[in-house]
Amino acid sequence: MARAQTQMQVHGLAALLLTTEAEIRYFTGFLTRFWESPSRPWFLVIPASGKPIAVIPSIGAALMAQTWIEDIRTWCAPHPIDDGVSLLSDTLNAVAGTGQIGIPSGPETFVRVPQADWRRIDRATKGSIVSDNGITAMLRAVKSPAEIEKIATACTIAGGAFARVPDIAGLGTPLSEVFRAFQKLLLDEGADWVPYLAGGAGPEGYADVISPATERPLADGDVLMLDTGAVFDGYFCDFDRNFAIRTASDTARNAQARLIDSIDRAADIACPGTTAAQLFHAMDDVLTGGAGGSDAGRLGHGLGMQLTEGLSLIPGDHTELRPGMVITLEPGIETTPGRMMVHEENIVITESGCRFLSPRAGADLEVLR
Amino acid sequence: MARAQTQMQVHGLAALLLTTEAEIRYFTGFLTRFWESPSRPWFLVIPASGKPIAVIPSIGAALMAQTWIEDIRTWCAPHPIDDGVSLLSDTLNAVAGTGQIGIPSGPETFVRVPQADWRRIDRATKGSIVSDNGITAMLRAVKSPAEIEKIATACTIAGGAFARVPDIAGLGTPLSEVFRAFQKLLLDEGADWVPYLAGGAGPEGYADVISPATERPLADGDVLMLDTGAVFDGYFCDFDRNFAIRTASDTARNAQARLIDSIDRAADIACPGTTAAQLFHAMDDVLTGGAGGSDAGRLGHGLGMQLTEGLSLIPGDHTELRPGMVITLEPGIETTPGRMMVHEENIVITESGCRFLSPRAGADLEVLR
Repeated sequence: MARAQTQMQVHGLAALLLTTEAEIRYFTGFLTRFWESPSRPWFLVIPASGKPIAVIPSIGAALMAQTWIEDIRTWCAPHPIDDGVSLLSDTLNAVAGTGQIGIPSGPETFVRVPQADWRRIDRATKGSIVSDNGITAMLRAVKSPAEIEKIATACTIAGGAFARVPDIAGLGTPLSEVFRAFQKLLLDEGADWVPYLAGGAGPEGYADVISPATERPLADGDVLMLDTGAVFDGYFCDFDRNFAIRTASDTARNAQARLIDSIDRAADIACPGTTAAQLFHAMDDVLTGGAGGSDAGRLGHGLGMQLTEGLSLIPGDHTELRPGMVITLEPGIETTPGRMMVHEENIVITESGCRFLSPRAGADLEVLR
Repeated sequence: MARAQTQMQVHGLAALLLTTEAEIRYFTGFLTRFWESPSRPWFLVIPASGKPIAVIPSIGAALMAQTWIEDIRTWCAPHPIDDGVSLLSDTLNAVAGTGQIGIPSGPETFVRVPQADWRRIDRATKGSIVSDNGITAMLRAVKSPAEIEKIATACTIAGGAFARVPDIAGLGTPLSEVFRAFQKLLLDEGADWVPYLAGGAGPEGYADVISPATERPLADGDVLMLDTGAVFDGYFCDFDRNFAIRTASDTARNAQARLIDSIDRAADIACPGTTAAQLFHAMDDVLTGGAGGSDAGRLGHGLGMQLTEGLSLIPGDHTELRPGMVITLEPGIETTPGRMMVHEENIVITESGCRFLSPRAGADLEVLR
């Protein structure tokens, strides 16, 4: 928060206003799965000096009181007439007066408030609502040692689950059963919950990487991919593994080797000062000979309190890596027309290079019986 | 969609613009857990006549092509300069011209687009962006038989898991272990995934209902509560169960009986034409003698594609129940200062009354050994 307040002075902001789960948790430690319910807005106001003020539904007061936040202002929500609008604008007017109030406005952000209420808040607030100039995103991009430790634990948990995939998947297992059983393995290994699981299976690869599971049984020659974002203490891992069912074709074996090769190339140059675009090109050279990527749109991204956050490994993102950044390397290859294989590992940028947080997959495609 | 287009004509809308998971899935069937990633915006445009147009990142094209949507326009996202802004505004300008474009703007809605891009879209769009007049929310509130069947299946799954709680929780089990084991039971019973689990445990009840689990072992005399939103084929259940550990105090037994009594009172009057407020008062009479509720803010809510959606059982919500509405009844009682017990069941409104979708809990508090 001290770093945020320093930046707020640089940009002339009298307050920051935050409305989403990750942003509010970043500054408060307020961790709950209750955000799954869209019915109530939540607000955190960070003044240019002094401590943050939580303006929240009364259902959250007891949990917020367990954090370091002392000034907790509540209303009984949902309220059909005034769902926090007056309480928030009164707070903003007292804190910021006619000054500028910054809200996260760049990529990946949104205002978690109904548009009708957002207009009411804007009208009732004396100050002007402007961009936070990326302050929140910039702070979140560089992880503290405590944050890195949590992500590393999530990676270890998922690594343990991937090691047990031979116990749950093989010839004839329906993909939907694999998905359920893999989520159970993640919980068994210590995940608090499993917000994300995707995957696919088919000969020489899969048609896309975001579909839910079908009931189709795994067949001889299929490549099975599982990609998970499991959470430990509020922090995500995000990596995948490929497996061949009974038989691994030369195409699939070669693709796996090339995916791992591209990971090596990126890891070789991942250090402070390297840009997101440079990581993209290091991988894309191996994957397509430099053709410029695929439909996935990027070859990796930042990672932390959210499954994906921060930079994108694309030609147009020139963000420089800094020590403490945690990112994914996520190369993909088209194996046959309409089918692909993707691979993903998680790394943290250190003072001199990078360190793998996920237990690395080998260049040999693992075969399940 | 036909019903939406009829309402659009009533309200003079040339198009609907949708940006969130549930809204887009409602009209398309596009089901993926990839929404967990905040990095890419997604759009659906529904013209006043004709079929919907998906304006989406290319990573989603293959999955969207499996739905009934034929007009799928993609861009390579994330894009640092133009992240779908031009493609969307071009589409809106072609579809709506200078007409009105409705977006969901009421309770529980938000615009899932970064503010900076939202302003660019507004500037590049010839038509005016206005409220959808609640069309989307109104349609979603009344479930089709197919939707009710999916919610009923989710309820059956969770009921099966609750019946097995004696196998996983008892004296000395850490609450965090109960949470992990219960999620495994839900998957084992057939849940696709478990987006929501909350709960608590303590003597005579718990301090709040949204906290994550602590490591504290269950103790003699504790009341354990587990509240889950498990998903089957994209639809939620949302109900809870209470258990006493070894010993159930008179206070806890009486609270359980009173909670069930309040459910009975609400179910007795739940039928088409009854209002959300009337259900609230029927329960609140039993719970507080008519004092008007608690910090939770409401005694139930709508349910469906989201954990909570639609009406709220509060004094100020005069929405009339209609056949096909699925709601929760969620009474709570303060058992001792700062501690409470809550209970929840799921019902569907029928032509003549209501039907329980969750397997009802009894008035006797179940005791675990």
